[in-house]
Parts: sequence; structure tokens; C-alpha cells
Amino acid sequence: MNFSIEKSIEILERTPDVLNTMLQNISADWTSSNEGGETWSVYDIIGHLIHGEKTDWIRRAEIILSEKPGRTFEPFDRLAQFEESEGKSLTQLLEEFKILRKKNIEHLRSKKLTYKNLEEKGIHPAFGEVTLSQLLSTWVVHDLNHIAQISRVMAKQYKAEVGPWIQYLRILQL
Amino acid sequence: MNFSIEKSIEILERTPDVLNTMLQNISADWTSSNEGGETWSVYDIIGHLIHGEKTDWIRRAEIILSEKPGRTFEPFDRLAQFEESEGKSLTQLLEEFKILRKKNIEHLRSKKLTYKNLEEKGIHPAFGEVTLSQLLSTWVVHDLNHIAQISRVMAKQYKAEVGPWIQYLRILQL
Repeated sequence: MNFSIEKSIEILERTPDVLNTMLQNISADWTSSNEGGETWSVYDIIGHLIHGEKTDWIRRAEIILSEKPGRTFEPFDRLAQFEESEGKSLTQLLEEFKILRKKNIEHLRSKKLTYKNLEEKGIHPAFGEVTLSQLLSTWVVHDLNHIAQISRVMAKQYKAEVGPWIQYLRILQL
Repeated sequence: MNFSIEKSIEILERTPDVLNTMLQNISADWTSSNEGGETWSVYDIIGHLIHGEKTDWIRRAEIILSEKPGRTFEPFDRLAQFEESEGKSLTQLLEEFKILRKKNIEHLRSKKLTYKNLEEKGIHPAFGEVTLSQLLSTWVVHDLNHIAQISRVMAKQYKAEVGPWIQYLRILQL
């Protein structure tokens, strides 16, 4: 499948509703525990998605499309949510993510990107040159990655409860 | 987290809406391709979930709760969907799953299961003795497993599009 703005937006615009459907008003037992050690809870993951909306995807797209020399991205802070989410409920985080995502998709659409734009480049702090279409594809896959992670973190809460079926449930072995 | 009927239903009752939100009216590019070889597309996975509603979870629970001797489960056919889904659209499958799941949750609630019921046993064709609470926990984790799988199958469609970011996207390496 080749990159397409419209097909990317199909995923991006669904994610807030997918998360709301999965998580709204669910027992905290499913969302406040992690997979052990330094891993993230569902609550932590939503905070991470919010931080991406604020500082990563659209901001990096703007850097690529800017006329300025030196199109190097700021490194993304993968732990910012531990401070930023403090004191907020999961419901508040889900609502915040929904509002930010809607605004960012409107912003993306307003750019009316051409094929030429999609090949423009920025400098990733670790990888070097990356194109706008690679950045936008990554935004989409990043959403799906975290939906899968949320499913896995929730599944793990029942790891001890499934008995011998653990052998058939790959998600509990990841 | 210990097994709870109510907390299990929180997940089970959300799954049809989660799938609808993720997949309804999305481009077939996301749902008709698989991960290569004999793997399943999103369309195949929804067919598999339908077959489980018809022949697995509630039917096995009934066997466990029956007074009859020899509470051995029928083996589950993991490939039944390739015949059963034939000629149906994804929209039809999503609707079929939603109706079956609703009926099965109503059936589960109507049993008014006691703690004692949850410890009753059936015979799994591969594992031997399993309890009702292990069966119901597995139903929940099975849903989450397939939501994660659907996310992964969709993500893989952009595997070549993300460029160097593939290194940071665990879902593309599974």
C-alpha cells in the first residue's frame, strides 16, 4: 500500500473515538496498572499520545515545509507525560487528545499537500534525512502501535486468570 | 487483577463498537490485505470472531455448567471463517458480530453465575481440565488479542512507507 494523505487521515481521525470506545468509564483496574517494571499503564500511554500531538507530528511537518535552512527536529521527550498528566483524570486526557487531534487534522488538511511536498525532507536527530510522507506514515503507524499496546496492557491484567490458555494467547507472551 | 464477571463484560461489550469505530467505511486497502503468506486480513479476523461467538465461548460455558458427565469441549475450527464469511461485506460481518455478541452477553448475564459456578470445570481437548473463570478470562483476552492483531495488520500495510522509523515501531517487527 502506497502512502496516501486521505487514507492516513482515515486512521488518524478515528483514533480518539477508538480510545474513547475502549476506555471511557471502564474500571481503573484495566487502565492504571502496567506490564511490570518501568512499562506504561494505559493512562501513561494516553499522556504520551497527547504530548505527540503538542510537540511532534505537526511541529515536525512544519519544520519540513519551512523555507528555513537547517530543518532539524527537536528530540521528542518520551517521558514528558509523567509530569504533564499529573492531576488529570483519564476522561480529561481522552478529551484533551480528541481536541488536539481534531485541530491537528484540520491543520494538515489546510496545507493541501502536493506530491512534491511529500518528498520534502527534514533532519531527524537520530536517523538524518526523512521525508514528510515518512513522517506522516509514522504518525499513522504510531497510533496503531499504541492501540495494540493498550490492548496488550489490558490483556496482561488477566495473565494469571486464563490458566493453560496462555499457550494460545500470543499477546500475553509479548 | 482477579477475575470479575462485571469487569470482563466491560471489555466484551465494548469490542463490537471498538471494531466498528476502527473499521466502518474505511478503505479496503486497510482491511483486505494480510501480513503475508497464510496470515489473516482484518476481514478474516472478524470472521474468526463471529465463529467464536457461534461455537466457542458460550457453548463451552454451557458444557461446563451442564450436569451431564464428560464435559469435553468440541475442538474449535480456526479456519471456519474462510467458508462462512464468503460473499459477505465487512460491514455485514461487523453487524453480525455485534448482534451475536449482544445476545451472548445477555445469555451470560442471565446465568447469574456464583463464585462456585466459576470454579466448575470442563475438559479442553488439548489442556485437560479448565475452569469456567479461565474460559471467561480467555474470552476477554482473546478480544484484546485480536484488536491488537487488527492494529498490527493495518500498521503493516505502511511498513515500507515509514522509512527509518521502522526501528522505533515495534509493531512492524512482530
